[in-house]
Amino acid sequence: MKNELDLSLIRPLVRAWLAEDVGRGDITSTSVIPSKAYAVARLEARESFVVAGLGVAGLVFETVSDRPPEWDPKTEDGQIAAAGDTLARVEGNLRSILTAERTALNVFARLSGVASLTADYARSLAGTNARLVDTRKTTPGLRVLEKYAVRVGGGSNHRYGLDDGILIKDNHIASAGGIGPAVRSARSKAHHGLKVEVEVEDHAGLDEALDAGADIVLLDNMTVEDVRKAVEATAGRALLEVSGGIKLDNIEDYARTGVDLISVGALTHSVRSVDVALEVDL
Amino acid sequence: MKNELDLSLIRPLVRAWLAEDVGRGDITSTSVIPSKAYAVARLEARESFVVAGLGVAGLVFETVSDRPPEWDPKTEDGQIAAAGDTLARVEGNLRSILTAERTALNVFARLSGVASLTADYARSLAGTNARLVDTRKTTPGLRVLEKYAVRVGGGSNHRYGLDDGILIKDNHIASAGGIGPAVRSARSKAHHGLKVEVEVEDHAGLDEALDAGADIVLLDNMTVEDVRKAVEATAGRALLEVSGGIKLDNIEDYARTGVDLISVGALTHSVRSVDVALEVDL
Amino acid sequence: MKNELDLSLIRPLVRAWLAEDVGRGDITSTSVIPSKAYAVARLEARESFVVAGLGVAGLVFETVSDRPPEWDPKTEDGQIAAAGDTLARVEGNLRSILTAERTALNVFARLSGVASLTADYARSLAGTNARLVDTRKTTPGLRVLEKYAVRVGGGSNHRYGLDDGILIKDNHIASAGGIGPAVRSARSKAHHGLKVEVEVEDHAGLDEALDAGADIVLLDNMTVEDVRKAVEATAGRALLEVSGGIKLDNIEDYARTGVDLISVGALTHSVRSVDVALEVDL
Amino acid sequence: MKNELDLSLIRPLVRAWLAEDVGRGDITSTSVIPSKAYAVARLEARESFVVAGLGVAGLVFETVSDRPPEWDPKTEDGQIAAAGDTLARVEGNLRSILTAERTALNVFARLSGVASLTADYARSLAGTNARLVDTRKTTPGLRVLEKYAVRVGGGSNHRYGLDDGILIKDNHIASAGGIGPAVRSARSKAHHGLKVEVEVEDHAGLDEALDAGADIVLLDNMTVEDVRKAVEATAGRALLEVSGGIKLDNIEDYARTGVDLISVGALTHSVRSVDVALEVDL
Amino acid sequence: MKNELDLSLIRPLVRAWLAEDVGRGDITSTSVIPSKAYAVARLEARESFVVAGLGVAGLVFETVSDRPPEWDPKTEDGQIAAAGDTLARVEGNLRSILTAERTALNVFARLSGVASLTADYARSLAGTNARLVDTRKTTPGLRVLEKYAVRVGGGSNHRYGLDDGILIKDNHIASAGGIGPAVRSARSKAHHGLKVEVEVEDHAGLDEALDAGADIVLLDNMTVEDVRKAVEATAGRALLEVSGGIKLDNIEDYARTGVDLISVGALTHSVRSVDVALEVDL
Amino acid sequence: MKNELDLSLIRPLVRAWLAEDVGRGDITSTSVIPSKAYAVARLEARESFVVAGLGVAGLVFETVSDRPPEWDPKTEDGQIAAAGDTLARVEGNLRSILTAERTALNVFARLSGVASLTADYARSLAGTNARLVDTRKTTPGLRVLEKYAVRVGGGSNHRYGLDDGILIKDNHIASAGGIGPAVRSARSKAHHGLKVEVEVEDHAGLDEALDAGADIVLLDNMTVEDVRKAVEATAGRALLEVSGGIKLDNIEDYARTGVDLISVGALTHSVRSVDVALEVDL
Repeated sequence: MKNELDLSLIRPLVRAWLAEDVGRGDITSTSVIPSKAYAVARLEARESFVVAGLGVAGLVFETVSDRPPEWDPKTEDGQIAAAGDTLARVEGNLRSILTAERTALNVFARLSGVASLTADYARSLAGTNARLVDTRKTTPGLRVLEKYAVRVGGGSNHRYGLDDGILIKDNHIASAGGIGPAVRSARSKAHHGLKVEVEVEDHAGLDEALDAGADIVLLDNMTVEDVRKAVEATAGRALLEVSGGIKLDNIEDYARTGVDLISVGALTHSVRSVDVALEVDL
Repeated sequence: MKNELDLSLIRPLVRAWLAEDVGRGDITSTSVIPSKAYAVARLEARESFVVAGLGVAGLVFETVSDRPPEWDPKTEDGQIAAAGDTLARVEGNLRSILTAERTALNVFARLSGVASLTADYARSLAGTNARLVDTRKTTPGLRVLEKYAVRVGGGSNHRYGLDDGILIKDNHIASAGGIGPAVRSARSKAHHGLKVEVEVEDHAGLDEALDAGADIVLLDNMTVEDVRKAVEATAGRALLEVSGGIKLDNIEDYARTGVDLISVGALTHSVRSVDVALEVDL
Repeated sequence: MKNELDLSLIRPLVRAWLAEDVGRGDITSTSVIPSKAYAVARLEARESFVVAGLGVAGLVFETVSDRPPEWDPKTEDGQIAAAGDTLARVEGNLRSILTAERTALNVFARLSGVASLTADYARSLAGTNARLVDTRKTTPGLRVLEKYAVRVGGGSNHRYGLDDGILIKDNHIASAGGIGPAVRSARSKAHHGLKVEVEVEDHAGLDEALDAGADIVLLDNMTVEDVRKAVEATAGRALLEVSGGIKLDNIEDYARTGVDLISVGALTHSVRSVDVALEVDL
Repeated sequence: MKNELDLSLIRPLVRAWLAEDVGRGDITSTSVIPSKAYAVARLEARESFVVAGLGVAGLVFETVSDRPPEWDPKTEDGQIAAAGDTLARVEGNLRSILTAERTALNVFARLSGVASLTADYARSLAGTNARLVDTRKTTPGLRVLEKYAVRVGGGSNHRYGLDDGILIKDNHIASAGGIGPAVRSARSKAHHGLKVEVEVEDHAGLDEALDAGADIVLLDNMTVEDVRKAVEATAGRALLEVSGGIKLDNIEDYARTGVDLISVGALTHSVRSVDVALEVDL
Repeated sequence: MKNELDLSLIRPLVRAWLAEDVGRGDITSTSVIPSKAYAVARLEARESFVVAGLGVAGLVFETVSDRPPEWDPKTEDGQIAAAGDTLARVEGNLRSILTAERTALNVFARLSGVASLTADYARSLAGTNARLVDTRKTTPGLRVLEKYAVRVGGGSNHRYGLDDGILIKDNHIASAGGIGPAVRSARSKAHHGLKVEVEVEDHAGLDEALDAGADIVLLDNMTVEDVRKAVEATAGRALLEVSGGIKLDNIEDYARTGVDLISVGALTHSVRSVDVALEVDL
Repeated sequence: MKNELDLSLIRPLVRAWLAEDVGRGDITSTSVIPSKAYAVARLEARESFVVAGLGVAGLVFETVSDRPPEWDPKTEDGQIAAAGDTLARVEGNLRSILTAERTALNVFARLSGVASLTADYARSLAGTNARLVDTRKTTPGLRVLEKYAVRVGGGSNHRYGLDDGILIKDNHIASAGGIGPAVRSARSKAHHGLKVEVEVEDHAGLDEALDAGADIVLLDNMTVEDVRKAVEATAGRALLEVSGGIKLDNIEDYARTGVDLISVGALTHSVRSVDVALEVDL
């Protein structure tokens, strides 16, 4: 599942991004470059990172005009690129190459940034049973891609959105009149193939959730020590997820508590794009 | 122009974001919260930042369902929020509030992040004539909003896309056979209301650009000292822009050279979302 | 959850249906009826049925033109209508009423047909613990509405589509190399909030599924007696669903076996539209 | 015209149906089946029926992903399939085949159901001059396909929608002030290429319609005997259509009256989907 | 039918036109005019013409932004405006008024041009029985509006498109093997509510068409004298339409032959926009 | 730039135009012409004109159905066609050819009309330095094509829309409090790559504009003599554009004043479509 992305789903997005950048046309290229100018270009890494979104970048080039260049990838998503590596070769009409360049780089640099940051976190979980998962704190419009990049970087996905997973939070609980009623209501009304996950803030909440038959309990903003106790108290009766305040310097401690899942919003909400460039040979 | 954004242009984006997160419905809220539950919520800052995108967040709440909550902003874009400040009040159907929450926070936190980072850079230009400008290194799909957030943060916009500004780069020059031919070709073919901007890498290039009548010259990756010399050599014959390697710790030095424009890709390509939350009172 | 449907999600569908029927305009009404003719109409049941989709019918009238009539429902989804009952009152521009009539009736009659058929099946489950669930055998384009109508009729929904529930069938199993490998692969790759359901054809399959830790086992095309044995053998270790060959005259027998879920494709794939009409008073 | 359907018009529908069922992806297939698994499958009839929509089913398979399987039809629309017949062969990526399966079957089974039901009615008209026609009582969103299936089954189409045919009904008449004024108003205002059809309930109405120069008269809910008298009275001055209460056991009687057209809403509003399945060989 | 246009159908067009002209925003107004500047403007005729499309112009103003001005029409479609007449009053946010101005004027001036030209032709038919009709030679994307403007100007519409009327031309005839076979094939395959119109070039063709039972015969490029003979020969057995070479200086001669319909492509394919302006009072 | 048009941008327009004309299908062709009838057709000029939009016409044929004919152009945009010239050859399915015919001709005849009219005006500028430019008075929905046709005819484009050029007009000036404030406000708020153009009505206005540093001054409705004086007074400090009242019989006089740009709204707002036809060989 790691490197898989059905590009047919991404095509409308790519068209919208190109419309945003190109609008009625790339006036610089059209007015300066001869219509039939031909070139070869290389997508080149300028630093070391985890490659993610190479196929998406390729789709941008293939969609840009009625004379799209050819795209020839030289590596694949999930590989580690070093500075100077050629990631792909683009060959064809020069105007088309330059018109697509910025859009292709923007999305590729962002997705590789997500994958690389995820890989940093995931490395800390080596040797534990904990699974690193993302959140819904993604960039509006890019969720399917950012969640894919998380997988490429070695993380797993949490639910995609509000319609394919149940996660009962504090406000739901308050409105339902308690953890127990909330869990039972979700169980009876949502479809039977969905587990019921509920967020708790302390050990009393955990007990209540387990008594109500929650399948997954989200331990929110607990200390490492409290999580350890929660793992013991739960004794396998439910999956346990921790979230809140997880950073690169404490994630391993949380992972060693025996918790099942660790979710990190930063994987997608605060990402540095990696440094890549398109080198054109005329 | 600073705080102005025509929300009627944003409406289709908001619908697409909600479709992405909500899909066929928020199964947790629908199965746990009574249909008519009512609540008041506050959008609250958890740290200090420049507010940007408040109206967009409001539009998310107003669009979420056929029972949308009321949105009552308590501040406006461009203001500095302190931790604990209430930024807006949301009141109405609880399900609708919770369904919209994540999408509203995601976009607002990102735009405020862009504005806050921009304000950091802009502060360094105080007392100089240099104008801080953004680039096309924006998040695919969010350009109109991220460029707006740059303005809110005190920056100015460069061209929006490939169709409303001319910027001749190295590859255009190589294909056209030199700076002079490239500038003249752009001048004669693009519409007469557009200035011609050309990128140069050294003083020889600058001379060639000025001779060809370029309106704006982009000095790419030059040292502060070289930029100072370029300003002198140009003597007002063209606008000068610097880009490449500009950071918070050197931007003031560049600004003091007398350059007209400083463009910074990081304003939009590597942004930390600010910390905000929705506090619900049931 | 029974009667709840967010009409804001349905609006684009309604526009598409009206475009299909009305096209460039209702030439009969426009050429025969005075532009300002005014009327009151009643949506009237011509037989007894379970009402479903009343709000959708109302949305059709409210969307039909720039002079839409007013819609005033007299009952609500889930109620039983008798022949002659007035279900709603429509008042306003006569042309608009007649132009919307057929589209409104078509969708309402179909959804009420689904709800009524579901109610027939659901009645047979009274006094048992079995839950009546639908399938993905819905009309292309109408799934969200037909699944809603199933709930109105007293049934529950199975997964909405391929992306919010796991159901491993015979071909998946064959490709994965057995029930065990398939279940384990799904468990490790799909998000942790989803239960793993697997289809089996006999008791050996059931044992294998239970051993692999399946959360739900779908007993396909088994006799009542075999289902009874499966319930005993499972002893609560997984939810059990039966499907295949369930009809009105045997569903109660299956329900009495103690099975948890009974899925019936006919609820949506072979439905008789109920008899309703719009009576106009001029 | 019988078997003709321009699939280029259907493509957007197919994409919408797949989006409805597949959403963000088929999580079962993606997590259980190897990415490159390959298979051959057969679309197999499980009962006897009139084939309709085979090309549409093929289009679903061809549209499902960026690795679509090949579609090889073994029969064509309008043929009679027997239980066990192979209708088409599908070969290629297994995941793609399974992801498309349900959507393809849903639409094909429905259209073949419409064609088969139509053929049952059409058979009763053999040896008469009456033409079997459909109505606007179709499934919202599927009209173009259901009307096609009616043709495949041996029926003819009535007008497609409100914009390509004139049919003056009771409410139009009441608003216009009588059959005569209504017919004349339609004649003068609609384009000259459209015939004027008007609904009447009795012989007085028929006379009035004929006097006003109606091209077609719809005899609504009349007995066979009354229809026979109407045919005589009309003596070829207009086409006559009957509707209302037509069933398989009385349609032949109506046809033998000499009426020109018999319209049957049940052809599309209450259809049993035929039994077909996809058999996969791994 | 003359002045009627359902603006709800036009809304998507208006949004597309504004997107075309305004794109990401009216940079002149936004950068020069204060955000809250308020104004009153008048839509003023600069010459005499038949008003058409006033509501469409209003819709442009009402759609332009989230601060749309108010639109107050002072006349209505079909009226004759004189130079200097105020056609409508627009009051509200100045930026919004100026942003919408050009788009509103462009469509209104074109539609009034169509209506005015139509009125010139229609005037020549006074006292004859001939009906002036348009053709499918309309501006791509504007047919519904241009055909509306023809009606406003006193003309009638021919079929809207290829799907709501039958017109058999020379190539159809050649392919079908003659006028007779073509007419009979259309009669049996198209829906019964459509008349069959066939184009002929001479009297032999007319005879053949009448023998085959054509409902309407299009006399293509015939002289006035030949048309007169055709009218006599037809003796009311079919409607007769003339087309080809009709101009303002010969249309009356054709009309006096007794022909039923005269179609003129120039009504929509070669139109001078009328002279109108928006006068703003600040 | 002259003959260049990226057809990938036009594809959605072509689909919309075909939907407008063809709707649910070409009932005449489908009911009269055999499904597999094959033909060769020629696009033939019936008068002399400048060819523009040949590729667009081709795209219409290539998009019309799932059996599109082949398109083989025999000339190219910008060439002068003589009456009788074959412009392109179309070969393939006859129904598809006839279904696409009208839409293809409508757009091609209009664009060639624009190019031909532009060429008439452009011819008058030979030997002067003046550039003929278009305006925003284009047909709603066709701007990208009409502006292309202007280029084909030998003209240049003014700004595309409100977002890629600054043009300060009388109402902007009044609202800003004078020419000087308006020009300075635009300069400081719009992006730096845009020139500031301002409209003036007399010599005082011109002086004010030049003092404020306007890059381009639009001389509105001035006499030839006044324009000559303005050119002298400006002495190269700004580009000068004239507009208003320019006709074929005075454009040369204006051009000889030494003005830089002459804009003519009539190029696009009042165009006669050229005479072309499709000749089919069966």
